Amino acid sequence: MPDAARPRYPHRHLLGIEGLSPLDIEALLDAADEAVEVSRQVEKKKGTLRGRTQINLFFEPSTRTQASFELAGKRLGADVMNMAVASSSVKKGETLVDTAATLNAMHPDIIVVRHHSAGAVHLLARKVDCAVVNAGDGAHEHPTQALLDALTIRRNKGRIQGLTVAICGDILHSRVARSNMILLAALGAKVRLVAPSTLLPAGIEGLGFPCFTDMRRGIEGADIVMMLRLQRERMHGSFVPSVKEYFRYHGLDAEKLSHAAPDALVMHPGPMNRGVEIASDIADGSQSLIKEQVEMGVAVRMAVLEALASHLPNG
Amino acid sequence: MPDAARPRYPHRHLLGIEGLSPLDIEALLDAADEAVEVSRQVEKKKGTLRGRTQINLFFEPSTRTQASFELAGKRLGADVMNMAVASSSVKKGETLVDTAATLNAMHPDIIVVRHHSAGAVHLLARKVDCAVVNAGDGAHEHPTQALLDALTIRRNKGRIQGLTVAICGDILHSRVARSNMILLAALGAKVRLVAPSTLLPAGIEGLGFPCFTDMRRGIEGADIVMMLRLQRERMHGSFVPSVKEYFRYHGLDAEKLSHAAPDALVMHPGPMNRGVEIASDIADGSQSLIKEQVEMGVAVRMAVLEALASHLPNG
Amino acid sequence: MPDAARPRYPHRHLLGIEGLSPLDIEALLDAADEAVEVSRQVEKKKGTLRGRTQINLFFEPSTRTQASFELAGKRLGADVMNMAVASSSVKKGETLVDTAATLNAMHPDIIVVRHHSAGAVHLLARKVDCAVVNAGDGAHEHPTQALLDALTIRRNKGRIQGLTVAICGDILHSRVARSNMILLAALGAKVRLVAPSTLLPAGIEGLGFPCFTDMRRGIEGADIVMMLRLQRERMHGSFVPSVKEYFRYHGLDAEKLSHAAPDALVMHPGPMNRGVEIASDIADGSQSLIKEQVEMGVAVRMAVLEALASHLPNG
Repeated sequence: MPDAARPRYPHRHLLGIEGLSPLDIEALLDAADEAVEVSRQVEKKKGTLRGRTQINLFFEPSTRTQASFELAGKRLGADVMNMAVASSSVKKGETLVDTAATLNAMHPDIIVVRHHSAGAVHLLARKVDCAVVNAGDGAHEHPTQALLDALTIRRNKGRIQGLTVAICGDILHSRVARSNMILLAALGAKVRLVAPSTLLPAGIEGLGFPCFTDMRRGIEGADIVMMLRLQRERMHGSFVPSVKEYFRYHGLDAEKLSHAAPDALVMHPGPMNRGVEIASDIADGSQSLIKEQVEMGVAVRMAVLEALASHLPNG
Repeated sequence: MPDAARPRYPHRHLLGIEGLSPLDIEALLDAADEAVEVSRQVEKKKGTLRGRTQINLFFEPSTRTQASFELAGKRLGADVMNMAVASSSVKKGETLVDTAATLNAMHPDIIVVRHHSAGAVHLLARKVDCAVVNAGDGAHEHPTQALLDALTIRRNKGRIQGLTVAICGDILHSRVARSNMILLAALGAKVRLVAPSTLLPAGIEGLGFPCFTDMRRGIEGADIVMMLRLQRERMHGSFVPSVKEYFRYHGLDAEKLSHAAPDALVMHPGPMNRGVEIASDIADGSQSLIKEQVEMGVAVRMAVLEALASHLPNG
Repeated sequence: MPDAARPRYPHRHLLGIEGLSPLDIEALLDAADEAVEVSRQVEKKKGTLRGRTQINLFFEPSTRTQASFELAGKRLGADVMNMAVASSSVKKGETLVDTAATLNAMHPDIIVVRHHSAGAVHLLARKVDCAVVNAGDGAHEHPTQALLDALTIRRNKGRIQGLTVAICGDILHSRVARSNMILLAALGAKVRLVAPSTLLPAGIEGLGFPCFTDMRRGIEGADIVMMLRLQRERMHGSFVPSVKEYFRYHGLDAEKLSHAAPDALVMHPGPMNRGVEIASDIADGSQSLIKEQVEMGVAVRMAVLEALASHLPNG
């Protein structure tokens, strides 16, 4: 399709999957498909963001997400600045709004934000003139993760429409699950939620996704088994499940996986707790897409950064 | 004025405002006025520092100052390296002088230093072959802050000469106040100091600036009301003022501001303690220059980096 | 010698000096000799690594080594990404192998690793497709330090073959000592080990190097006196020597140095404990090569990065 005829991502920010149309999503996935090739070249460099300023503003630490955004920006030629905010002005009592106003006055083009509170990213987006990307806000959304998951699925299955995707594990604490539910439903996948009852959010049944507490039943016939990290660091006291019990009932092993479709593929957003939510042989096995997800992460973020930059003045 | 006829900043370092002539200061402000435009372009990039190495050596964390220097250097094309020294060799018992010698041997062109001790930056400058910029040393000086404040005033008032500037608040702990007093006096402003008596340095009256403990009297008729951050983290025990009392007597609110000149402008170096030294409606109001100060910060630092680089061999 | 005729470094990684041939070592030293000039220019920039991705993965903090690798990569035009892993996914329970797999999926060209465990770097190298440089693993190896030491010696003495090199101090905890012993022996130097008996590894005599506990005897006639940092942070309880006693018997001062050859040169890998393993007047004296070692560090790392990149596809 000629470039001009292609649907383009029409929004100023990427704050969540909620509110995006299937066309918006597909525009980003198509662009990401092309961006994959940049990182596979010897000279991993495209000049589309030359002279642009990207700020990675991380209120929570994150190895992989920050690295992925940093490499995406640098490979596009942007000036990338990392700001880990634990050791910064926030300690001196500055509010998020003031941090936003301060950064905004330095004329960034794109701010990538991770924050421990749902809604913080939306608040920040209202206070700045530049584009904002949500790199994870509390238990709310993590849109680039859902996009990279969708890209990985589409490249391996040829489509998303009609696939059965079982999202399994600590759904209660997972922004990954939330963004994926919205995206996969929007593109026509049949999403199922599989978790112990204590790790399903209250009222989740109202969203219309089939919910399962028995893992074998939940992944029965699934095309994609998407495991989530057990976020013990967000749990307290008696609500922290025993790792051994958890693995027994909710960890993905070969036996449980045998209940999925024969050509089922396994995903995990990382970092993995091996032996907790997933057995090592499955994580490293032939049905695993886990490494490819990481590769697609850089490509999706390049596509997002380019799409947002194209809305900036003269972009 | 043709380039060749312009006064140039003649010093190898920028360690403080003390010792600079009015011409030195104006040379930097004029250059900064031009640098403002670089950051307002889509492609915020100038190649004047290409192949130069800038090291940001921060012994104290700082969001905004480090970010401002980092963006300034990157937009000029320099290779910028950040070193946060809490987590470094200093822990292993290395002296500041050895750190300086080590970095110097790596052939940086410019080292930007923040240090908790007054005088550390001068010591470091004597030990290296490259240019050194003081990004704040103890309660001593913060020259780029004073320059960006002066640039902001000049752009809004058209001049500095003859203006009445009231510097208000925690003067005792403020390198910002100190650098501003020297700079503003050098350029012919009438500087007043306004603070509770416990936050005025001993012997300050000897400097010849009028001092006020009553805020309404102190800002009476002022053209510029420059608020300082209450640095509670530098205070101990019974000397820490109550926030509520502090705001009542020394926080800038609409009523107190009404005593200044009708077209008075309000400044704050950030990060702000809203409701402590400044009311939110004033910080965000039409008389506030606070965001513009941040923007001018990047421009001033670009001007300083370029000026210092021009003194380097073949620069 | 024409470029094509020159011996080239033939390995995919640089994990240690062990296993390198004298020709391998000399190929790197020759290339480093040329790289010295890049950092002495005004525009310290060579484009050989443009579009390549270098990840500095530091599980232990290090000012000088990380800075040296970062500047080396940036001056070659690489996109350099620093990852300090204390504040990262490792906290969330991710294994080293998963960290390796994750980074590998982002298509880096070179990963520079420092890790507190001997062997971690080899493990990581087996899990990735890119080149790996050992920037220090436990008490095992620190090959670029040994290379920079060799380069410094060769530039000052014209050769390494036949020189008497006394390695003195905390040999027990020193990867620097270990890499240097192997390299210097490979190039034909006569290596002696000088340390209190508590700081000599068990079984060290089996390696065939003369060992001395009396420092004056150990450095008698030496051409090079290479001091090591006393790593008290790796010692526990009653095994931590008194600093005063240590300096008296094992610290290098003018009197002890007078027992070495009249034109002996003094080295230290830094960071120094002045007054512990070395007297300040010796560290700063005319026989000291300590600053030159740091300069050579950047050059050696540039040579290593370029050599490894040349093995990458189309490199």
